[in-house]
Amino acid sequence: MSMPTTPPSGFRDFLPHTQAVRTKAVETVSRVYRSFGFNEIGTTCVEELKVLTGKAGTENEKLIFKILKRGEKLDLAQGTQELADLGLRFELTLSLARYYVRHESVLPHPFKVFNMGPVWRAERAQKGRYREFWQCDADVIGSDHWGCEVDVISAMTEAFLALGMGCPTVLLNDRTLISALLDSAGVPAEKRTEAMILLDKLDKLPEDKVLADLSALVGPEAAKTVKERVVSGGSDPESFKDLAPEAVARLSRILGMLRSSFGEADKFKLAPSLMRGLDYYTGPVFEFKFPGMAGSVGGGGRYDGLVGKFSGRPVPACGGSIGLERVMLILEERGEAAASGPDACVTVFAEELRERSLQAAAALRKAGLSADVYPGSRPLRDQFKYADHRKASFVLIIGPDEAAAGKVKVKDLKTGEERLEDAGNAAASVKSRLGPSAGT
Amino acid sequence: MSMPTTPPSGFRDFLPHTQAVRTKAVETVSRVYRSFGFNEIGTTCVEELKVLTGKAGTENEKLIFKILKRGEKLDLAQGTQELADLGLRFELTLSLARYYVRHESVLPHPFKVFNMGPVWRAERAQKGRYREFWQCDADVIGSDHWGCEVDVISAMTEAFLALGMGCPTVLLNDRTLISALLDSAGVPAEKRTEAMILLDKLDKLPEDKVLADLSALVGPEAAKTVKERVVSGGSDPESFKDLAPEAVARLSRILGMLRSSFGEADKFKLAPSLMRGLDYYTGPVFEFKFPGMAGSVGGGGRYDGLVGKFSGRPVPACGGSIGLERVMLILEERGEAAASGPDACVTVFAEELRERSLQAAAALRKAGLSADVYPGSRPLRDQFKYADHRKASFVLIIGPDEAAAGKVKVKDLKTGEERLEDAGNAAASVKSRLGPSAGT
Repeated sequence: MSMPTTPPSGFRDFLPHTQAVRTKAVETVSRVYRSFGFNEIGTTCVEELKVLTGKAGTENEKLIFKILKRGEKLDLAQGTQELADLGLRFELTLSLARYYVRHESVLPHPFKVFNMGPVWRAERAQKGRYREFWQCDADVIGSDHWGCEVDVISAMTEAFLALGMGCPTVLLNDRTLISALLDSAGVPAEKRTEAMILLDKLDKLPEDKVLADLSALVGPEAAKTVKERVVSGGSDPESFKDLAPEAVARLSRILGMLRSSFGEADKFKLAPSLMRGLDYYTGPVFEFKFPGMAGSVGGGGRYDGLVGKFSGRPVPACGGSIGLERVMLILEERGEAAASGPDACVTVFAEELRERSLQAAAALRKAGLSADVYPGSRPLRDQFKYADHRKASFVLIIGPDEAAAGKVKVKDLKTGEERLEDAGNAAASVKSRLGPSAGT
Repeated sequence: MSMPTTPPSGFRDFLPHTQAVRTKAVETVSRVYRSFGFNEIGTTCVEELKVLTGKAGTENEKLIFKILKRGEKLDLAQGTQELADLGLRFELTLSLARYYVRHESVLPHPFKVFNMGPVWRAERAQKGRYREFWQCDADVIGSDHWGCEVDVISAMTEAFLALGMGCPTVLLNDRTLISALLDSAGVPAEKRTEAMILLDKLDKLPEDKVLADLSALVGPEAAKTVKERVVSGGSDPESFKDLAPEAVARLSRILGMLRSSFGEADKFKLAPSLMRGLDYYTGPVFEFKFPGMAGSVGGGGRYDGLVGKFSGRPVPACGGSIGLERVMLILEERGEAAASGPDACVTVFAEELRERSLQAAAALRKAGLSADVYPGSRPLRDQFKYADHRKASFVLIIGPDEAAAGKVKVKDLKTGEERLEDAGNAAASVKSRLGPSAGT
């Protein structure tokens, strides 16, 4: 049996330059969420299978990576369908709902919370779809006020801006608005969810195909009414006022506040066919789009029923999730590169001079810079090659002459310029030559 | 079936104040590793089972959480012992070895690398032992020079210092030294590993018990020799020079360099009975200890054989791992708390004034501060309670009078002092009252 060097299908390793961008992106989103007053929490990657498949279930249940029972429990389960007891989380919201109910008594109310980390789905592996991917969630639990939606959408929008991606287009809708429309078109209650799932496909499948399916489900008359209002009806919330006055008023307030906050009126708009895939949403739903990218880079909505599955009494909540992998696609396309090289590589001229090199590096670090001492003992030429590969800004050399004179030779790898500095002054010199942003 | 609100046994949620300390600790260790020139990478949480159980196997294999096959493959596997195809990683080093061989051609040589994240072990849950825990690893791959050990141990020691934990005691040993000692005592080669595992227990079990077991394994004569050298022999590497001159020379160089780098001679010492649990170590091993804590807070060693299991040719490597959970025990015992409250809570006096509050919050954020606008619409009294619970430093109030006059009332929650500021000046005022470290 040979040892594979690739990760399992659908899983990915990250090279240093990519990981640097990922870490920076996660830190940026964290910083913005925190600046809006969201509390970071941590939830477990592994959940009881009955939590994942329980009453709160969504269409993602099918995609759970299940964990085999262990020891005696596995022996007893052999031959049954109960081989697994745990599973990898497929999203963060379900764990958050569980967490909130467990810790409610010690949490602020309402609870503004963020949570980031990997989630796993056993999807068929294909380009751009991964089995392990990161989500960056922000939620407000315990309030049904439309200010929560404004808060969550604002924090997410600001996160995209802070990532340098520009202002996203934010599509909004309300589940109750579509329910009312289907109702008024004569679609029976039991066909409503199915009709919504069909309408949700309007941005993925040809309109004719969706409408034909809708017609088959609810009859041509009802389908025609729905089509006129949803597809051709435009994006003015007021045009739906007769059907769902409350939902329209709420959507208008959310849209108005976002438009005035960001000063970008046409970036925030009603999309009457937007449903979002998960079936736990109960009110407003929203999605973030960027030009040139099919699908969304994030989304969310109000889920007033989910927390109650754990607590046994209704707890209003709303939240959204930024998909880190979609963000990375955009950042990488733009050639985003977090500076991943050290400020300086410090060569080791000879074994008896290694200590001098370590001292020079320690001085750089004390000044807030990064310094990579060559860990082996290769010729200076190889150590310069290493510094090039590392994309270091400077190389420091301490040969016998420099050591005897208490000096350090500092070479700028970009310009090739070499300067002989007093050992005590080398760190300050490198820092000043790196410019004002160095060492922060 | 009720929905459990606790995570599975051995798994943990983290409340906001704990998560804030965790995140800060991870960022601190990352920053220090980066400052030493280590490259951050990302590896998958899930590996092929044959990688985890393969030739590189260690005693941790038994503890793998295995992931059930899916779909047809599961149907075919029913009733067999081959129910799982994937597993959760139980450490980061094995994934790193796989990663290195896969990406070697584009990586710097030697490769200084760090990797952090959760790992999973299906241990019996008990106090202080978790099934999901974080490791913070730093490694140097591709060099057999003792400078690698100095680099890894220095970066880890500096990380503990940056965490505010003080300088750890670093115990060092060398596997080849103990091999030579067992050899010279007449212990046959096939009993060597077992003898090492026994000796490794000297810091956990009573000395008498360990020596009795050793005596039973290798005979009383050999056990006596080993005991004299290991247990009573002191911690001067030179006393082992006759047995393994090369290992002693290497250890002496590493110890000397660390002592002079950190100026703490008695913090770095030889511990002849130190083995480290994993059986892939081939040379120097080391462990980090803090007063009052049994067991280690981190450790590592040289593993010149592991990478070769993937590459088919020998690749020298050494590395170490900081256990985040042990670090957290120490930080929490000390009452470490990362400031987790926002700089300001901004109240919403009335719905028609919400936009003013949002504007005031946006101005604070632009100044680099965090501002939490109350997302609901409760009486001001409740909003103040919320601000107290959030441990905010300031509360901002914009009532009708303030709004009409273009002012913002800023209350310091610690002193109770209220000031009326021009709306355009409130952010600067809060920032200056927070002191020089605010907004960084």
